Amino acid sequence: MRLSRFFLPILKENPREAEIVSHRLMLRAGMIRQQGQGSFSWLPLGKRVLDKVNRIIREEQDRAGAQEILMPTIQSADLWIESGRYEDYGKEMLRITDRHERNMLYGPTNEEMVTDIFRSYVRSYKDLPLNLYHIQWKYRDEVRPRFGVMRSREFLMKDAYSFDLDFDGAKAAYNRMFVAYLRTFARMGLQAIPMRADTGPIGGDLSHEFIILASTGESEVFCRKDFLEFEVPGADVDFGDDAQIADIVATWTTPYAATDEMHDEAAWDAIAEDDKVSARGIEVGHIFHFGTKYSEPMKASVTGPDGKEHFVSMGSYGIGPSRLLAAIIEASHDENGIVWPESVAPFDIALINMKVGDEACDSVCEELYDKLRAAGRDVLYDDTDQRAGGKFATADLIGLPWQVIVGPRGVAAGEVEVKNRKSGERQSVAIAEALARFGTRQ
Amino acid sequence: MRLSRFFLPILKENPREAEIVSHRLMLRAGMIRQQGQGSFSWLPLGKRVLDKVNRIIREEQDRAGAQEILMPTIQSADLWIESGRYEDYGKEMLRITDRHERNMLYGPTNEEMVTDIFRSYVRSYKDLPLNLYHIQWKYRDEVRPRFGVMRSREFLMKDAYSFDLDFDGAKAAYNRMFVAYLRTFARMGLQAIPMRADTGPIGGDLSHEFIILASTGESEVFCRKDFLEFEVPGADVDFGDDAQIADIVATWTTPYAATDEMHDEAAWDAIAEDDKVSARGIEVGHIFHFGTKYSEPMKASVTGPDGKEHFVSMGSYGIGPSRLLAAIIEASHDENGIVWPESVAPFDIALINMKVGDEACDSVCEELYDKLRAAGRDVLYDDTDQRAGGKFATADLIGLPWQVIVGPRGVAAGEVEVKNRKSGERQSVAIAEALARFGTRQ
Repeated sequence: MRLSRFFLPILKENPREAEIVSHRLMLRAGMIRQQGQGSFSWLPLGKRVLDKVNRIIREEQDRAGAQEILMPTIQSADLWIESGRYEDYGKEMLRITDRHERNMLYGPTNEEMVTDIFRSYVRSYKDLPLNLYHIQWKYRDEVRPRFGVMRSREFLMKDAYSFDLDFDGAKAAYNRMFVAYLRTFARMGLQAIPMRADTGPIGGDLSHEFIILASTGESEVFCRKDFLEFEVPGADVDFGDDAQIADIVATWTTPYAATDEMHDEAAWDAIAEDDKVSARGIEVGHIFHFGTKYSEPMKASVTGPDGKEHFVSMGSYGIGPSRLLAAIIEASHDENGIVWPESVAPFDIALINMKVGDEACDSVCEELYDKLRAAGRDVLYDDTDQRAGGKFATADLIGLPWQVIVGPRGVAAGEVEVKNRKSGERQSVAIAEALARFGTRQ
Repeated sequence: MRLSRFFLPILKENPREAEIVSHRLMLRAGMIRQQGQGSFSWLPLGKRVLDKVNRIIREEQDRAGAQEILMPTIQSADLWIESGRYEDYGKEMLRITDRHERNMLYGPTNEEMVTDIFRSYVRSYKDLPLNLYHIQWKYRDEVRPRFGVMRSREFLMKDAYSFDLDFDGAKAAYNRMFVAYLRTFARMGLQAIPMRADTGPIGGDLSHEFIILASTGESEVFCRKDFLEFEVPGADVDFGDDAQIADIVATWTTPYAATDEMHDEAAWDAIAEDDKVSARGIEVGHIFHFGTKYSEPMKASVTGPDGKEHFVSMGSYGIGPSRLLAAIIEASHDENGIVWPESVAPFDIALINMKVGDEACDSVCEELYDKLRAAGRDVLYDDTDQRAGGKFATADLIGLPWQVIVGPRGVAAGEVEVKNRKSGERQSVAIAEALARFGTRQ
């Protein structure tokens, strides 16, 4: 993409309304625009990151055996009356009346609707396990939406729902999502730590929040430092092997880890100082086993191997991609702007032409632009007539992992400069070497 | 994907509520499920087709220079009051009040919001042309939604909006979208004919509907048969060359073509019988130039080269991917089910194991399954214990372009059967030949 044709409305000033760094940087980098209270448009740069985040989420959901569907945003109130949640949900639910005076709502979550889909089609335990997910807009009418896309009213959510014959099956399904989440966050360059979460009136210990460590995080978290050294399962992890998956979950749930809310001072005090990590964290995922909470009132059952009807045992598994994107920025930025992990960067390389109009610079840039794209790299080519300082500031602000800087002096010597955004390291290399370095996906 | 693990709820009976063939087939093939009046969930098979349709739309929008953004579904009423459409829109607009009693609505279209984005950032003619599009859910509270996803209340729409300094610029932008639409529909295997559309109170001749011919189409259309022989521009068409693009548009807009609504009997009668095509059609796209209709009331202007402020000249360009998918089925089906064009088929190949449990059949199927997927083919492997007749019926119903049928007799002779869904032609080929035929993308 040529920057001269790319809609990238960079803000020079820090927007006053932004209280946290991710909100500030997303506005400044022209990634999002506020459309109303807790409502945002994604501009081209932001949309590109959102797509990459969603792709990783999808790949890991699919790998773990979940299947993608797409449910509508507007739901009939009837289903929620059936589950008993219509009255309970309160003012956070956006209630709507259609032209025929029917009660509807903008889905804040989809347990009811997916249970309705399940009960319409599935009759036998032989069709289990089943896990259906979608990535769809949700709405929660928060009293005070804030922090940009970190806590907005309209937000994107990946929500998966598992259906199993009994608790053992549901637990295996839960474990698969647990491992899928470990992989998902690690692929985005995040250090995510699963922490036991409050299961509320349902009880049991099968709920975990995935918390990433970020110095600007919203809440305090406590864990043993063992987590920082645990290896995240590779792409070859066998989701068909319940025992292997359960072992991974055991490793990641045994050492102490707790959010402020669930913190146990006594247990914490028993840990040696050297083994403790106390930090700020941001919740980026939440998984939850809730058994027959919806299947019973909504009569979602299957015939078991015993010939009897069983209400299915369910769980739900959420990641907010729009929120996650902000969390990535909270965890990875510096004073000059965003520092994208390579896997989710909107472009791989900023190609900076220091002297547009100079025949030699233009020609080297065009060659690099064509060849790097042909090699499958996403390149943002700064072909504008901005001065060099402005170009560097923009490239740093939008945080692409690599900058390839083409100036007249370097070009005369057959060289370009390569800068790593994260380390700040700059290196002059021959043009052919720059091509070789980025010419194949690493 | 193994069918034994794929959520594909085939219906044996014809659903009574379905009045048209696409609705019937989408329900029967387990592609969609009705969730309420004019509201549908996309099940895994349908979601796969929707993704492929969206990908083609995106590629052609991007090729033509449009840039993807993503605006929220819920809009503030304020913008619509500003444009003057809030009162005009009537009951089709889904109006919503939030917890603070603010008036909002579920966007039926996005002219206001995108104009608001434009005026917030763009100041100079130097930043034009600009074309922003998104693929987002829309809601129109129709009195009587029907025909499945062909006319639903919540539906997906790709809507693009162009901004230019003056009419000439806007016309060039219009032409680019015109050509992008020709390519988009052709890539989906559709014969789409642009027909002059009513521009209403704005006047002018810059509005076209793209109509595909389908015997079950919703309305009667009339055109010269020249259209059936016109060549659709290739992928190398130069969207930077306004003259070349205008020539293509001239070719496609000169011969007579009209919907029932715009039909001119006198002009029609003047055409020789042999040159006439009178058929049924379905609208799948609509492009529209509307000049300063929104930029004036909403004060979206840029400084021109003359140093003066100019209200930008705009156009909008819509395709409904969910509706389009139904239209593809209307245009391409037979008595046994859907016949997907290869470009949008949910899977490329149905691999049918006629005797699951037979060692030789299983082993050949596993080999084909692995190797075809490794070659980049989407394969749905029917590894269920259904009888052969049921497997054939399912494969025909869901309409995958190719069936590779593996039975004990063929395997003993080192052969499998290859069936083309569209022609019905079956051929016995050596296993290695089947691999060679599908082993590389055609």
